[in-house]
Amino acid sequence: MLTRQEFKDAQLRAAEMIKNSGIKITEAEIGKIDVADFGLSHLEKEGAQIITFFSTDRVSAKVIALFPNQTLPEHWHPPVGSDPGKEETVRVVDGTVYLYLPGKENLRYGVIPEGKDACYTVRHEIVMKPGEQITLQPNTKHWFQAGNEGAVIYSFSTCVRDMLDGFSDPEIVRETKVVD
Amino acid sequence: MLTRQEFKDAQLRAAEMIKNSGIKITEAEIGKIDVADFGLSHLEKEGAQIITFFSTDRVSAKVIALFPNQTLPEHWHPPVGSDPGKEETVRVVDGTVYLYLPGKENLRYGVIPEGKDACYTVRHEIVMKPGEQITLQPNTKHWFQAGNEGAVIYSFSTCVRDMLDGFSDPEIVRETKVVD
Repeated sequence: MLTRQEFKDAQLRAAEMIKNSGIKITEAEIGKIDVADFGLSHLEKEGAQIITFFSTDRVSAKVIALFPNQTLPEHWHPPVGSDPGKEETVRVVDGTVYLYLPGKENLRYGVIPEGKDACYTVRHEIVMKPGEQITLQPNTKHWFQAGNEGAVIYSFSTCVRDMLDGFSDPEIVRETKVVD
Repeated sequence: MLTRQEFKDAQLRAAEMIKNSGIKITEAEIGKIDVADFGLSHLEKEGAQIITFFSTDRVSAKVIALFPNQTLPEHWHPPVGSDPGKEETVRVVDGTVYLYLPGKENLRYGVIPEGKDACYTVRHEIVMKPGEQITLQPNTKHWFQAGNEGAVIYSFSTCVRDMLDGFSDPEIVRETKVVD
């Protein structure tokens, strides 16, 4: 849950970060930045700010802004019917991103959000800098954390079905509730 | 046909344009910029400079730099097997782009390359500025021309199969020959 003011402040802060990263966005896109607190009501700790450039049945391009040390919770994109699930290529535009995937645990720079050990199960850390990219296979658990400066990331993918994503944290609700 | 020097010069010129547009690219990507003269040997007039960020069986992201008034020749992305053909969303990052599609002829700002009337058959003009984007359906003829300042464009798409694209100009060869 976010207040309307918190939502608006997060939108403007994310818009500044995105513009500073060199990405050209329109005023209309700023007003449509999605601020996701994943129902956890502590946006600065776990959350994400997202612009969807476009989203069709076949392709989508998004920009994700993460505030300093903000964590985008562990999730995966499951198969849906004949679709094997969302394939996603993330490309860092600004800042440092710690990406976590299944594999040998080597978590060194990132920090598991307090009290959430059970909700962050994959801990193979990949440190990503601007211009670096990686393609995430469908149905693969992953989470992101921004470094101290925050981060701006592109997410290029097949069809987006956010509401069908799986999350390791049972408290997560994908839709953010905004109250006056 | 391009000389190795012409190819290299075009790469560096495109890299400058792309960097000036705000897009972050790596040194490795600069060295892999594809300079396409479409076998016509007059790059400045008809051609394109392209960075492929990545290209999988499902998704691809490219950056296209067009020199001032350079034209990317009329083409389409045909069906291949069970794939209806490439769906492509273009988003302008820098400069003005004249995009041409099937529909009512209203060509006003662009110029058909000299002597190529028969090779540019779709003439419904859409003037695109930074931040504007459009999704091109598969198998739809289209061509682009940059304005006087040149242009930088994102191309987000389904699977890329450049060598299977159709071109209206029978003289076009998709692979650029580079000679010493």
